[in-house]
Amino acid sequence: MKNFSFHNPTRIVFGKDCVAKLNKFIPEKERVLVCFGGGSVRFNGVYNQVKATLSGYTVHEFWGIEPNPSVETVRAAVAEGKSFNATCVLAVGGGSVLDACKLIAAALTTDVDPWEITRAGVCKTYLPLYTVLTVPATGSEMNSGAVISNKATGEKFPVTCGFPVVSFMDPSFCLTLGQRQRACGIADAYVHVLEQYLTFPQSGIMDRMAEGVLKQLIDIAPKCVKEELDYDTASEYMLTATIALNGFLGMGVVPDWATHFIGHEITALTSITHAETLTMILPHLWYVLLDHKQEKLAQYARRVWHITDIKDERKLALRAIERTVKFFRDLGLATSMLEKNVDPEVGNEIIERFYKRNTSLGEGQICTPELIEAVIRRSQQVKF
Amino acid sequence: MKNFSFHNPTRIVFGKDCVAKLNKFIPEKERVLVCFGGGSVRFNGVYNQVKATLSGYTVHEFWGIEPNPSVETVRAAVAEGKSFNATCVLAVGGGSVLDACKLIAAALTTDVDPWEITRAGVCKTYLPLYTVLTVPATGSEMNSGAVISNKATGEKFPVTCGFPVVSFMDPSFCLTLGQRQRACGIADAYVHVLEQYLTFPQSGIMDRMAEGVLKQLIDIAPKCVKEELDYDTASEYMLTATIALNGFLGMGVVPDWATHFIGHEITALTSITHAETLTMILPHLWYVLLDHKQEKLAQYARRVWHITDIKDERKLALRAIERTVKFFRDLGLATSMLEKNVDPEVGNEIIERFYKRNTSLGEGQICTPELIEAVIRRSQQVKF
Repeated sequence: MKNFSFHNPTRIVFGKDCVAKLNKFIPEKERVLVCFGGGSVRFNGVYNQVKATLSGYTVHEFWGIEPNPSVETVRAAVAEGKSFNATCVLAVGGGSVLDACKLIAAALTTDVDPWEITRAGVCKTYLPLYTVLTVPATGSEMNSGAVISNKATGEKFPVTCGFPVVSFMDPSFCLTLGQRQRACGIADAYVHVLEQYLTFPQSGIMDRMAEGVLKQLIDIAPKCVKEELDYDTASEYMLTATIALNGFLGMGVVPDWATHFIGHEITALTSITHAETLTMILPHLWYVLLDHKQEKLAQYARRVWHITDIKDERKLALRAIERTVKFFRDLGLATSMLEKNVDPEVGNEIIERFYKRNTSLGEGQICTPELIEAVIRRSQQVKF
Repeated sequence: MKNFSFHNPTRIVFGKDCVAKLNKFIPEKERVLVCFGGGSVRFNGVYNQVKATLSGYTVHEFWGIEPNPSVETVRAAVAEGKSFNATCVLAVGGGSVLDACKLIAAALTTDVDPWEITRAGVCKTYLPLYTVLTVPATGSEMNSGAVISNKATGEKFPVTCGFPVVSFMDPSFCLTLGQRQRACGIADAYVHVLEQYLTFPQSGIMDRMAEGVLKQLIDIAPKCVKEELDYDTASEYMLTATIALNGFLGMGVVPDWATHFIGHEITALTSITHAETLTMILPHLWYVLLDHKQEKLAQYARRVWHITDIKDERKLALRAIERTVKFFRDLGLATSMLEKNVDPEVGNEIIERFYKRNTSLGEGQICTPELIEAVIRRSQQVKF
């Protein structure tokens, strides 16, 4: 286990009707910039609940944060927040709204352009951020990360901001989500765990916890993507997606994240949903890096998929990949760029970008531009 | 899953030589009351490391916090801290030193007697508390709980205080611990997980994580109690004991804690080590509450002990108890009061106390004074 530091100061207020407690946590003198997505919260009751609990506050509403939030939208929100003299930000929505609001909360404290902050990779000052989560998937409600797109350049990068002060999570809000949205949420959370776990043996305690969270996602996936979602399954889904990326599974271990970096490029160029870019890259990355990842893939096969009839490590590793592909396909998601008919030029552009940047990805930077090319070529050529 | 709130603001700084970073986190203007146990830190290098990193600070040392720390000692430390005008507290030691320092940090902000604070059950104000952990077991380094004894009355009660601001955890410090101390640490952490997990089915995600942590403790126990402990096993042991009781496993679930409440009484009257009071009560409590706990015991048998050849739920539950008893016995710990020759009068006194207080324990207060009596009688009469 490596030396590490862990700190996650976000308070979670979880459960039915928890939004009514917003005014117990946001000081009444605050000038609250409330940011929303496209408007679905107007129809599922969330907007009315937020409005009711903030009735005594000075509030300015900003609408229209899009999926894969753009720095262009962040700039517009920051301009409105500055003329309103916002003293805190409340994000109401899914991971995209929350991510955008992290950067908005930071940009409201400085004159530096939000894209410059994003490219610097880290924000040093920020207004207090509160969140009301409506779509479980990204874990943004309990971490300090955000991913921001630039429409002008077709780029998408992660940036480290502040942790939310309090995040309000009412599983009832999941009940109106579509089946595909829930499937994407499960896949996203599953890959978040794998990006931290599926490297090489590093920590017994992190492995055991990550394996538990993976098994939980496998347990709940079938119920979670049914037409009718029940409250109890929604609670499990919501809390599990948070734990998949709030740092609990990442103490003292070197993570991978190569699939995410490649996936972000696909989304930036095609607008394919984040989760599906992950499911169309991850299995191919595992094939290309099979020698590096074999030991951990075999452990994952034994402990998570309970495969007991194969002793050969290589075969176990391959079986682990097959089972993971089946898991993604059962969720209705594509597992190759070929299957999704991604324009071959997109792959070429991404490959070129990684060569140009000359960055290697993954644990110990094992995934060089050459290997990134091999991963993308495989996803372009091989269906599962 | 129940509605819940979660907040754990403690920062963990973990790994070899982390104590050298103390002065990066404690502001230099602070007047630091540094509290120690009996003096073992003078011989294992910990004291010198702490002294070196605090060389620029105004410091007052308080020595002599005993195992199962007493309110009498807390009062003495508070008196010294008040005349020193302490502005923060640094605890250097195991769970007992840390627990005492939580109450000291609180009592330094008020004129209320520390025992009065303990009996009120919660502290509202406290000085910033920093900790250097030397003995993994209680999880006190990353939670807000403390357990305080009263020598005069022979009582022992838990109290909720503040979370440490930063806890420094260097696994090297575990290398000088005795085998029995490590065995007790493993048992204590194991029971901490069970007190949160072994109730009735409540939350899929909490179950999966708790099962992972239990398996991890089973994995590392044999290496952890060997004569020679290696650094890597020490890291696993140290971090796992923290996670066993830092709230990660308790979100949205009703815990048990009956074994702890009974165990605290045994320690208060006999000075038997905390962990061993747990191992001599828990199996008997499970027998007495078998009907209530059967479903979860059977799940624990299947998922943690991988018992696949028994289908009958009752038999599975009984097998789970047997395996747990064997786990404790392999650690060298007693699993009944009879075996440890506890004076029968001690049992009688404890039973009388619970009748007098008329308190029921456990999830949903299922463990009435009558059932507490049955648990203690069984532990007094039945060896495993």
